[in-house]
Formats: sequence, structure tokens, C-alpha cells
Amino acid sequence: MNYSNLFSERINNVPKSFIREILSLIQNDDIISFAGGLPNPDFFPVEEFRQASNKVLMDCDTDALQYTITEGYRPLREHISKRYKQKFNLDVPLEQILITSGSQQGIDLLAKVLMNKGDGLLIENPTYLAAIQSFIVYQPEFFPVSLQNDGPDLAEMEQILEKHDIKAFYSIPNFQNPTGLTYSDEKRRHIADLLKKHNTLLLVDDPYGDIRFEGTPAESFKNLYEHTILMGSFSKTVSPGCRLGWLVAPKEIYEKLYIAKQASDLHTSYLTQRIMAQFLDDHDLDQHVSKISDFYGKQKDAMIRAINEYLPDFVEYTKPEGGMFIWLTIREDMDALKLFRAAVEEGVAFVPGEPFFVNRKKKNTLRMNFTNVSEDVMMEGMKRLARAFQKVGYSK
Amino acid sequence: MNYSNLFSERINNVPKSFIREILSLIQNDDIISFAGGLPNPDFFPVEEFRQASNKVLMDCDTDALQYTITEGYRPLREHISKRYKQKFNLDVPLEQILITSGSQQGIDLLAKVLMNKGDGLLIENPTYLAAIQSFIVYQPEFFPVSLQNDGPDLAEMEQILEKHDIKAFYSIPNFQNPTGLTYSDEKRRHIADLLKKHNTLLLVDDPYGDIRFEGTPAESFKNLYEHTILMGSFSKTVSPGCRLGWLVAPKEIYEKLYIAKQASDLHTSYLTQRIMAQFLDDHDLDQHVSKISDFYGKQKDAMIRAINEYLPDFVEYTKPEGGMFIWLTIREDMDALKLFRAAVEEGVAFVPGEPFFVNRKKKNTLRMNFTNVSEDVMMEGMKRLARAFQKVGYSK
Repeated sequence: MNYSNLFSERINNVPKSFIREILSLIQNDDIISFAGGLPNPDFFPVEEFRQASNKVLMDCDTDALQYTITEGYRPLREHISKRYKQKFNLDVPLEQILITSGSQQGIDLLAKVLMNKGDGLLIENPTYLAAIQSFIVYQPEFFPVSLQNDGPDLAEMEQILEKHDIKAFYSIPNFQNPTGLTYSDEKRRHIADLLKKHNTLLLVDDPYGDIRFEGTPAESFKNLYEHTILMGSFSKTVSPGCRLGWLVAPKEIYEKLYIAKQASDLHTSYLTQRIMAQFLDDHDLDQHVSKISDFYGKQKDAMIRAINEYLPDFVEYTKPEGGMFIWLTIREDMDALKLFRAAVEEGVAFVPGEPFFVNRKKKNTLRMNFTNVSEDVMMEGMKRLARAFQKVGYSK
Repeated sequence: MNYSNLFSERINNVPKSFIREILSLIQNDDIISFAGGLPNPDFFPVEEFRQASNKVLMDCDTDALQYTITEGYRPLREHISKRYKQKFNLDVPLEQILITSGSQQGIDLLAKVLMNKGDGLLIENPTYLAAIQSFIVYQPEFFPVSLQNDGPDLAEMEQILEKHDIKAFYSIPNFQNPTGLTYSDEKRRHIADLLKKHNTLLLVDDPYGDIRFEGTPAESFKNLYEHTILMGSFSKTVSPGCRLGWLVAPKEIYEKLYIAKQASDLHTSYLTQRIMAQFLDDHDLDQHVSKISDFYGKQKDAMIRAINEYLPDFVEYTKPEGGMFIWLTIREDMDALKLFRAAVEEGVAFVPGEPFFVNRKKKNTLRMNFTNVSEDVMMEGMKRLARAFQKVGYSK
């Protein structure tokens, strides 16, 4: 049997993960990596989780190991609803919250429910690579809009919306992966107006929003535009390995997402939901998150100092107010992939920016993660990167 | 914005869950329910899981809360591989095992990877309702084959395979949900030959196979037919709430399933995988499963005694050697849905068989679960059901 003839058009449509191939090149322990996208494990509440799991599994209460409802554990949804009220003065009824297996599954469910082959989907250019992969499975037509320092290029966005039939806009408005950029409040209002005018759904993915180390909290899109679907996640604030995220959607869309969730995996691990809810009952998440944000802020400062000290003057960089990434732009005639190969030889790694673009790829961009190495190691890594610049003749 | 115009054809294609609507009718605590499909929670290893989670989260080992690989936790895959060797003398390399969020996700991933709209999919008639729902999303054309007491009707199956282009056969060969039926070894060999002749993939879903209380273990299809994909689950043997299942697939298909899994949710809850692996390290799963099987076997006997004692003589029933369900057939001119309404009035519930059929629906069938009520309650429930038979005039 020739299996290669068996596969669906949708899965044949998905390209191999570029990042995965890159990461396989840098399995070497001697390499200092700015390439990953992992939260710093020093902040994982391991002991708190141990206590929470003891409570949940105490007294032979069998419920935590049984099947549960597709919507997700009610007290966990209550925690999520309360946080929206506290942080954005948003009223989110529990009936509109669906617990998902990470916000990655939120993207998959939204695409499953909304996208017919060829449907117009507006996305940021560049954008989160794994979101592109999730969407590609359902074969929409992508319409990428350029990102500026304060958010999408509005003129370009308006032009796309006028020329094409766009069903939804997939947006990461806070501390975006890969660029670290955040939309200004002014742009958010303009975008809300534009989407309203063109009857376009807004899908807001916000895994990093809580990790703000500078500036003032931005407005929630949900307060600006009725037809907004929110995606959230505990991956960056508590634990990514638990795979716990959520969707917030208007009732009619929620009902379809519910069907898709049920068909996908019935419900998200109930034991994990129970442990997370117990952790949130017993601990102050804001306090926990502020420790992470403080540390990440210092790491970001250190990386910017190192860039200024060691890298050539022509290197431009974003100045994130939160999240986990800085985005570098080198000269237009330079190739980050060529630089990457030299960097690995020198013992340092980053992610070349190319795979984050759907078209109009900027080959002269780099994604740098600052959450996972100590300041000393960061300095050493940046010296190595400087040597790689020299090696390929990119030093002036 | 009119949301109803936004949905994908695939999701509009999925009918409302009949069982869910039925279950909403019987939320009343006074109703004795043979309708559910839940494992008996008395056998959940709650204390063992508490100890396992303590070990996993001991000494602030942060790894269990971090992202992990898409394939799943290696020691968990080792446990699964070892069991295939012990039980079926099957060699399953770890590289062919993909951990999924329940075997429900296994079905979803297989459909995602294999099914184009209109592709031929052979299924049992009746079959597992939630599998139909998962497949429907990807819009295959269903070809249902009738089930006999020893497995599918071979003549019918051959006719379908000759007339139509069938990509895969979705099969639940052991203690099927809803009928409790098991394929004979002889039929398995015939089916393997048929599928080979027609170049058709075999997708084996086996959540109940471990729960055998009578008879001799059947041959694994994987030993009979090379192009077999296996789905397995810890839901019925350890805990359904953990959502832990797996797929076993040949390398080329595995690679596509890997991509689909990554796009769906990156990986299954790592914390849950770690706890399950620790539980399997520290305890004998076969011993645990034999306790469940012994109990379920007694429950099955009790239900058959109660059927014989209380229900009309024309009621036919399957005699499962394992699993969780008995399938009743009443006279052809009778309607199980009408009986259901009367039953609920009398304070007892079951699932009418109709929704488990894709076509040629037999309205005179009932699914009865025997795992979740004590023998006393079972007898009382059956008396009530007998009264319902009388009430609708089905007593002779």
C-alpha cells in the first residue's frame, strides 16, 4: 500500500516546521540558545502544584478522575471570569468560557468552526508560526498585514478589507510572538472601527498579555468591539506543560466551538483543570505573575544592553513592554539564515525571522528570546553572535 | 453581524448530539440510569494517583510543568509498547506511538489526516456515536456494514468494498459500544484478507479490549493485517478524566499524525502523562484491570438475570464477554424512543439505539450500561423498565 496517496489535501498542505528543523540543529549543550520560546522554569509553582494535587486527590474523592463536561471545570471558569472583570472591567459569563488544551487548541477549534477552503483570513505579517500551521490545515486564504511599532499598518489593512471578503482577523495585540510589539490604544480603536465597517470577526490571541514589565495596560479589544473572540492561556503565567487555555465567544459561536471541542477530545484533562483551580484558590496569581514580569523585564534590559554593547550599530531592535521576545532587523541586503549558520558554529542560536512571514518575507530579521539564560550567559552569547556577524562580513 | 452565516460547512454538517439531549432529560436523581457510559469510579486509583503526583512533583523538579515533545512522554510510551508485547506478542517501536488526549482525539487526528470530503469510510452499523461525530466534521461518505453476533456481515462488507472506493474501515472489534459484540478470530482473518485485497486501511479503536471478563483473548488485528492503525486508551482501565490515549501507526502515517497533533494542541498534558507513567511504574496494571473485569462480569450477569426475570420474553440481548454494554432488541414493530419516554416517567433510563446507526436505523434497539449501579438498584431499575413496557402496550 502506498500511504502517500492516502493523505487528505488539508494535511498535505502543511509545510514542515522550520523552527523544529532549526532546533534539531542546536541540540548541542554548548550552544547558548536565544532560539527557544520556553517560559523560565524557575518560576513554575512546583511545590504549590504538589500541594494542590494532594488536596484534589485527598480523601479518595474519585470525581477528579472521572469524565467531566466539555465546557470545563466551573470553578476554573469562575477564576478566568473574575480576572477579566478585575483587569479589564469585562463581564464574561461562564457560559461563554470554554476550557481548551492550551490556546493552541483554541486556534484549531476556531479554524475548524469558521474556515472553509479559500475563506479570507487577515493575519499579522510576521505572526506566530504555530498559528499559521493550525490555520493552514483548514486552507484559508491568508491576507497578511504589515506590523509597525504601534500595531498593524492601517492603510494596508483598510485596503485589504475593502478589496477582499475577510471573515476574520487573527491578532496578537500584546507583546507579540515573534516581534514583542504591542498595539497602541489608538490603533485598537481604529481597528475596531474598520472591522465593524467590514463585518469582520476579531480573534484575539493573548498568551503574553499578563507578562507586562513596563508601560500601562492596554485596552481589551472586547471592550472596543462586540464581535471579538478571546483566547487565553495559563502557559506563560503558570505552566505550559499542563496545556490549559480558554476561549471566550458569543453564545452562537460558542455552541459550534462546543461541538468541535467535543468531537476533538470530549474535554480537557479534568485532573489538570482541578489542580490548576486549586492552585488559583490557594495562591494570588497576580503576585506570582508580577515575580515573573519583574524578572523578564530585567532580562529584556540586559539583552538590550548586550545588543548595544556587542552588535553592529545597524542592528535595529524592538523594545517590548512585556512577553518573551525581541525582534532584530539587520540591513536589507543581509540574510539572517546565513548569519544563523555562522552563529551555530560560534556556539549561539536564534530563530531567523523568515518562517514567521506568510509572504513579503523579510530575510533580514531575527527572533531573540530573553527569558531563559542568566545575564552572564546572555553576555557571552551576544559576544559569540557578534563574532558570527564578523565571520559572514556583516560587521559594518 | 449574523454569526450563522460565518460557520464552516464542516461544522454545520454535525448534527446535535442525540445522547446529550437524552441525558438532559434524566438529570433527576430519582431516575435509575442504564443510559450513561461511565466507568465505575469505585475503581479509580485515587490514592495511588495522589502518591504518584507527589513523586512527580517532588524536590521541585520543574520539568513536569514545562512544554514537552509532541510524541508524548517516552516512559509512558514504553509502558504501552511493553503491554502490546506481553498481550499480543506485538513489536511496537516507541517511534510509532503517539500519545493523544483520549482515543477520541485519535479518531479526530486520523480523520484530519486521511479524510477528504466524500472519501469512502466503512463503519460498523451501529457504531460508537462520538466517532460518527468526529468523522462527520471531515465529511467522508459513510458506508455502514451490519453487525452480526460474531462481527461484521462479510458478504455485505465484500459488496461495499467491491462497489466503492473505500479508504479505511473504522472498527471496534472488542466489546463494542453500543452492542457489546466482539469479532470472532475467524472473521478477523476474513476481514484482514478482504481489506488486503481492496487496499483498505484498518483503523482499530479498542478502548474496552482490556476489560474482558469471559472467554479467551482475541487475536490483535495488527498481527493479521499490516496496514492497521491502533487506537488505545487508559480511560476505561485507569481514569477517563485524565484524557490519555494513544495511536500506533506506520512511520509515514505517523509523520502526518504528528503534524496534525502539533497543530491541534502541541502535546497532551505533560503533568497527566507523568502521573500516569509513575502510576504504571509503581503498580501492576493487569492486577488493577482484573479487579474491574471481575466486578463488571458480575454486573453483566446480574443484568442478564434481571432481563430474564422482568422483561418480556421477546426481548433479545447480546452476551458480552467484556466491556460495559448490553444491547437489547425488541420486536420490529416497537419503538424504543416511545418506550424511553414511558421509562423516564417510571424512573428508569436507557439510550434508544437509533442514533448509533448511520442508516437502516433499527428503532427497536436499546443500549444498556451495567457498570454503574449496584445489583439491588439494577433489579429495581429493571422492574421499572418492565412497567414501562406494559405502559406502552409492549408487554406481549
